[in-house]
Amino acid sequence: MQVIRTIAAFKAARRARAGSLGFVPTMGYLHQGHLALVRRCRAENDATAVSIFVNPTQFSPQEDLARYPRDEERDLRLLREVGTDLVFLPPPEEVYPPGFNTWVEVLGVTERLEGAHRPGHFRGVATVVAKLFNIVEPTRAYFGQKDAQQVVVIQKLVADLTMNLEVVVCPTVREPDGLAMSSRNVYLDPEQRRAALVLFRALELARTLYAGGERSADRIRARMTHLIQEEPRARIDYISLADPRTLGELSEIRGGVLVSLAVRIGATRLIDNVVLGVEQ
Amino acid sequence: MQVIRTIAAFKAARRARAGSLGFVPTMGYLHQGHLALVRRCRAENDATAVSIFVNPTQFSPQEDLARYPRDEERDLRLLREVGTDLVFLPPPEEVYPPGFNTWVEVLGVTERLEGAHRPGHFRGVATVVAKLFNIVEPTRAYFGQKDAQQVVVIQKLVADLTMNLEVVVCPTVREPDGLAMSSRNVYLDPEQRRAALVLFRALELARTLYAGGERSADRIRARMTHLIQEEPRARIDYISLADPRTLGELSEIRGGVLVSLAVRIGATRLIDNVVLGVEQ
Repeated sequence: MQVIRTIAAFKAARRARAGSLGFVPTMGYLHQGHLALVRRCRAENDATAVSIFVNPTQFSPQEDLARYPRDEERDLRLLREVGTDLVFLPPPEEVYPPGFNTWVEVLGVTERLEGAHRPGHFRGVATVVAKLFNIVEPTRAYFGQKDAQQVVVIQKLVADLTMNLEVVVCPTVREPDGLAMSSRNVYLDPEQRRAALVLFRALELARTLYAGGERSADRIRARMTHLIQEEPRARIDYISLADPRTLGELSEIRGGVLVSLAVRIGATRLIDNVVLGVEQ
Repeated sequence: MQVIRTIAAFKAARRARAGSLGFVPTMGYLHQGHLALVRRCRAENDATAVSIFVNPTQFSPQEDLARYPRDEERDLRLLREVGTDLVFLPPPEEVYPPGFNTWVEVLGVTERLEGAHRPGHFRGVATVVAKLFNIVEPTRAYFGQKDAQQVVVIQKLVADLTMNLEVVVCPTVREPDGLAMSSRNVYLDPEQRRAALVLFRALELARTLYAGGERSADRIRARMTHLIQEEPRARIDYISLADPRTLGELSEIRGGVLVSLAVRIGATRLIDNVVLGVEQ
């Protein structure tokens, strides 16, 4: 496993490789969700690259950049175990040198949901992903369905700008009780950890209602809201039933639906989602 | 010479070629300035691609998109004569399909000069150039110094996003009397054509003053303004003496200086520039 810490060195290493290269961009503090992406990437490509970069431009000044969890040693051990060829750990000052001022923005699909609650977040995501794609030049890039809106944004970025790679979306990996894997889960104390299950339970409720024939997004949303409000440690940021492609909010479900939610458990903001009625 | 009209066909043709590929993006209605770029490109690359695309997103609603001059037949003849391998003529609806909404924006250096007078112009330029670079995958791309701010924007775009190509800037090509070549010169009637020379004369005045040791940007600007105001058909949009890299306006010249101006002659807006005190 090559561990590379400069853009120039990564480009040189990348060009030394023929064949397909799969790429898993991460912010580190890896969990089984990340490792599932790496395994899938390994299976589908001649070589696998993983980046670890806690991207400052996707955090707002109010957010948790400074306290975002990091453990490089453990991350590298996990990547070595799962079988990674190239690990890219660029320093922030090389990704954003003094005077950096070029931004990639996907409008429309970023206006609602996470975009509405985290101004500038997706501009930071789209910019760093575009830059990483230019450095890594991957054949395929792997993202988790857990960040549903991010997936839509990156698919649109790649399509609109005709970027030369395939975006592969992988299912959300969950703890045995259903909590979606997230680096932020480490912030939860035992009581909060128990309370955090309310996100999964609300999604399961939506799935059950949908399977029973319910097609009123408004009624499903109301039932989910009610369920979450019964958990005193939970504060709802949003509960959305939206068109999976445009992310426009639905009141009646005709085709598929992306059911997504953001809930604060104490100071920790968690997101989760499920797509219903669409082959994935 | 291959003439290619779809993105998919261009990508296929591009991948069929080994070796270096030089790229000259244009809006067509070619003149000797464009052909100088193509000749330089041919000399420095195994193959040469030219795009002809009148990019709607870099025109504001008030601007001259509809009446922008076009002559595809003549353009193709000129490109064949000068020796072009690939010509790319994408239809606007393929570059900007329904729902297109991803934008590349270079901030800072786009705030002044053309950016201040043409809101959204450089967002359109940066977006289409990024997209064309992804489609063409050039080794080198060629731009004329005539569009000085565009050159700065594209150099910054490529550097900030680590795009995989070299930007080559070529000197402005001029008519025998000094008027910078421009597709928009065709709009000028004979009296306006004569009056348009005032841009070049103002730049020559700046050069003469600088060569004589003048380092007050304010005094040079004032002398240029006075000269242009003596031409009744000319209306000044701006006269700028700026840092060639940051485009920040100068009052004293210490290093080099980009002297640029935009002047309306009747309804036609012309730009020109010269860089003084910098090896180019």
